[in-house]
Amino acid sequence: MLDAAVARWRALIGDEHVWTDDERLRAAGTATFATTQRVLAVIRPANREQVQACVKVAHELRVPLHPTSRGRNWGYGSRVPHRDAVVLDLARLDRIVDFDERMGYVTVEPGVTFWQLSRFLRTNRARVFASVTGGTSGGSVIANALERGDGTGPLGDRFGYICALEVVLPDGDVIHTGFARFGEAPIAPLARWGVGPYLDGLFSQSTFGVVTRATIWLAPYPARFVLAMFNAEELPPLIDALRGLKLAGVTTATTPVWNDVKALSFYFGQYPWSDTTVTPLPTDMREMMREGVGLGRWNGTVALYGASRAHGDALRDVVADVLSPIADVRFHEGPDDPLEADEAECAPNLGVPHDFSAATTYWRKTNPIPTELDPDRDRCGFVWLSHAMPFDGAHAGVVDEIVETEFASAGFEPNLALLGVTERALSAVAAIVYDRDVDGEDERAMQCHDRVHSMLVERGYPPFRRGVQTPAAIGEPRYAQLVDDIARVIDPHGVFGARG
Amino acid sequence: MLDAAVARWRALIGDEHVWTDDERLRAAGTATFATTQRVLAVIRPANREQVQACVKVAHELRVPLHPTSRGRNWGYGSRVPHRDAVVLDLARLDRIVDFDERMGYVTVEPGVTFWQLSRFLRTNRARVFASVTGGTSGGSVIANALERGDGTGPLGDRFGYICALEVVLPDGDVIHTGFARFGEAPIAPLARWGVGPYLDGLFSQSTFGVVTRATIWLAPYPARFVLAMFNAEELPPLIDALRGLKLAGVTTATTPVWNDVKALSFYFGQYPWSDTTVTPLPTDMREMMREGVGLGRWNGTVALYGASRAHGDALRDVVADVLSPIADVRFHEGPDDPLEADEAECAPNLGVPHDFSAATTYWRKTNPIPTELDPDRDRCGFVWLSHAMPFDGAHAGVVDEIVETEFASAGFEPNLALLGVTERALSAVAAIVYDRDVDGEDERAMQCHDRVHSMLVERGYPPFRRGVQTPAAIGEPRYAQLVDDIARVIDPHGVFGARG
Repeated sequence: MLDAAVARWRALIGDEHVWTDDERLRAAGTATFATTQRVLAVIRPANREQVQACVKVAHELRVPLHPTSRGRNWGYGSRVPHRDAVVLDLARLDRIVDFDERMGYVTVEPGVTFWQLSRFLRTNRARVFASVTGGTSGGSVIANALERGDGTGPLGDRFGYICALEVVLPDGDVIHTGFARFGEAPIAPLARWGVGPYLDGLFSQSTFGVVTRATIWLAPYPARFVLAMFNAEELPPLIDALRGLKLAGVTTATTPVWNDVKALSFYFGQYPWSDTTVTPLPTDMREMMREGVGLGRWNGTVALYGASRAHGDALRDVVADVLSPIADVRFHEGPDDPLEADEAECAPNLGVPHDFSAATTYWRKTNPIPTELDPDRDRCGFVWLSHAMPFDGAHAGVVDEIVETEFASAGFEPNLALLGVTERALSAVAAIVYDRDVDGEDERAMQCHDRVHSMLVERGYPPFRRGVQTPAAIGEPRYAQLVDDIARVIDPHGVFGARG
Repeated sequence: MLDAAVARWRALIGDEHVWTDDERLRAAGTATFATTQRVLAVIRPANREQVQACVKVAHELRVPLHPTSRGRNWGYGSRVPHRDAVVLDLARLDRIVDFDERMGYVTVEPGVTFWQLSRFLRTNRARVFASVTGGTSGGSVIANALERGDGTGPLGDRFGYICALEVVLPDGDVIHTGFARFGEAPIAPLARWGVGPYLDGLFSQSTFGVVTRATIWLAPYPARFVLAMFNAEELPPLIDALRGLKLAGVTTATTPVWNDVKALSFYFGQYPWSDTTVTPLPTDMREMMREGVGLGRWNGTVALYGASRAHGDALRDVVADVLSPIADVRFHEGPDDPLEADEAECAPNLGVPHDFSAATTYWRKTNPIPTELDPDRDRCGFVWLSHAMPFDGAHAGVVDEIVETEFASAGFEPNLALLGVTERALSAVAAIVYDRDVDGEDERAMQCHDRVHSMLVERGYPPFRRGVQTPAAIGEPRYAQLVDDIARVIDPHGVFGARG
């Protein structure tokens, strides 16, 4: 059936956009950790109509598809499907279809990257900006929002700021969600719920359809931007203070808190191989390194968006009052002119994407970080654990303790961030970073992942995002059955292999 | 089949909680406008287990059910089902199950009213509050959120601040959404999306299930509250200015704009029958009345929540700068002590529900407004038109023009509000208010409703919320088919009569 499908896809979208050679299949089937699923082919349609045609073929011939947008899902499996499948690569759908500075939105295709969007807005001298991923600037804006990725700055709960999805269903038909189902009315890009049941959630963290277009909301550039940068020794009071600031609306931005290991990996990029050959990083070296560059055990920012100078100053004073007793706080002002934001220390909070985070996939590599990052190709080891937990100091202490203990005993640095994306929950993201070229590390990393995953789940911290490595999150059987029932009616032939 | 079901329900929940007498069925089948659907019985289970048992009977015997919580859906059909059905009345499920002031949430059952919740929080001297409906204080907190009602104050986009739904499905099984499917973990009431596809949207503005419990998020009481009250003559610049304030995050509250008729109905409660017997209200009287009490052609508020005095002052100054050139603006301060909020002018913006709006259902009645409002019983005529439109001055002008012209020519006062619930869209809500005891008014009101509805839809302003009077909103046929497919798999026997 695969051969027949490949033949029809070639006819539909051209030979050069259907890849079946070993080298490219092997590349597409390589993640930042060991995987077993095979990529059967890669097909690269150019537009929505071609996507529909390709999906219809798969539906008819019952060939499993795995959609990817930019394939930069590093730490979650990159482009590797969760079962043997053909990769439906949407990178060629890279148009910015609509932009309205006044109403604060942009409508894009899934191949549009954070970098592309930020350059587009810069070129248009726009006074609005997108929340950007903490991951790579080369990632897909749409895919990150649909996977419920966290963003920097305001609108950081990225799935909360996307609407009017254009979705190719598993049978190749297309629908438009929200008010977009009434055609291209001006209201479509401006409101999320539509009328009747709200369906967008079905197409988030799922494989019920392929989103080929969506509207992303943008934030206005502030009259006065202030970035509070802090470091602290004690975690629980810091977390409780940040929750208070979020709940009170002092900041609308994601409040990241990085442990020293994470902050050091941003700062130095790579492991201090020139000073030691021992792994994991010895405690005394860890302390010396962080003290040497003025980092704390915990480090983070609170981004403040003032609608006037006095507003920005008032927000700064509230943060100073709340954080000063428990942290060292410094304040940086942002540039008044958005065109100068690229150069600012606070650039990510003003919509400028970056690769500081992505570069840390090379932390344990002994060769230098290349200009063009490709951790899949370069055999970087990188596995995410992404768990939801209360925005609460005591719980944060529990998670920190688990990560510290388990990572150390497995031989990895405890790389941990606690992201205050919303007001009441924290996204705890821990990265197992290693070198895939070191014998046995793939296995040891995955054992550590599985162990920490089950410990966190047992303590009441379920995953909020899954990669191909993440065990199924079943919970209530009747709930799982409902998801399966819906999957069966939407995707009767299992084209996208929907899973709950 | 109905008789058999009634017998089984009587055995399950007690004779006194299964109503079949004409008087009570007639009451349950009476709305604030003419309807034709019949209420076949009313069943009133006491708890979730009884709801499940009752639904299982309906599923087995294929008896159509119509769930209501408090039945105060005035202007949308009250308790009247959208087809002949048994009313499943959830009013007895009125427990406040969980409350956490520190994390800012409360978990309630569907019978809990806005008034009950506000008294509970007051009794607990809580420094957190709920966004309250602009409708009646006797309405259900959960039902209003699920119907995507708009709230006053912060968290006004009420469906955006509800999570961990407990849902009885059409077969009587129960599920819990979000992280609640993993049991009563501390994270369940604190985060919306869970992991995997987000399903809560399926149970909003739909009849795919009955929600018997949910968590509602609460806002902290501000260190300094300031209410800007404004009136203005020109609508478009006012709307554009308010959008700017919302987008910049100056206010997190819903920004209501009421036309003079709406504001006068709040102010006077009833039509000036002592001064005139002519309807609709003549233009010169309308102008005289509004000038007499210092109202403008357009009137509204911007609620400001300061985390410090300086923060509140800075927000006030931004609003003054933006609105003063186009409106008369006065500022009121709220009390520092939440216990004093009941008496404040700004009470609704601090979580105190009210019946100013609900009382206006009696606008055209010639007898006085009773102490206990019951517009269904009292033959008040009240029909909502609820349409989504861009948060844009020019569009606001178009909607105003349609409502003014069409209401006047049908003999009604153009009662219009434009609510800035979110940053980019306005909820345009127009009320046709009349006296059902006047011959021919029911028909004339519904003709006016249907005409304005279709004019607004044609201009690109679809309904954002439907009552039993609202024509089906089909749009894309493939989208409607998807909703039908999901309905068929969730509710194969049509117990809740799911509709798209």
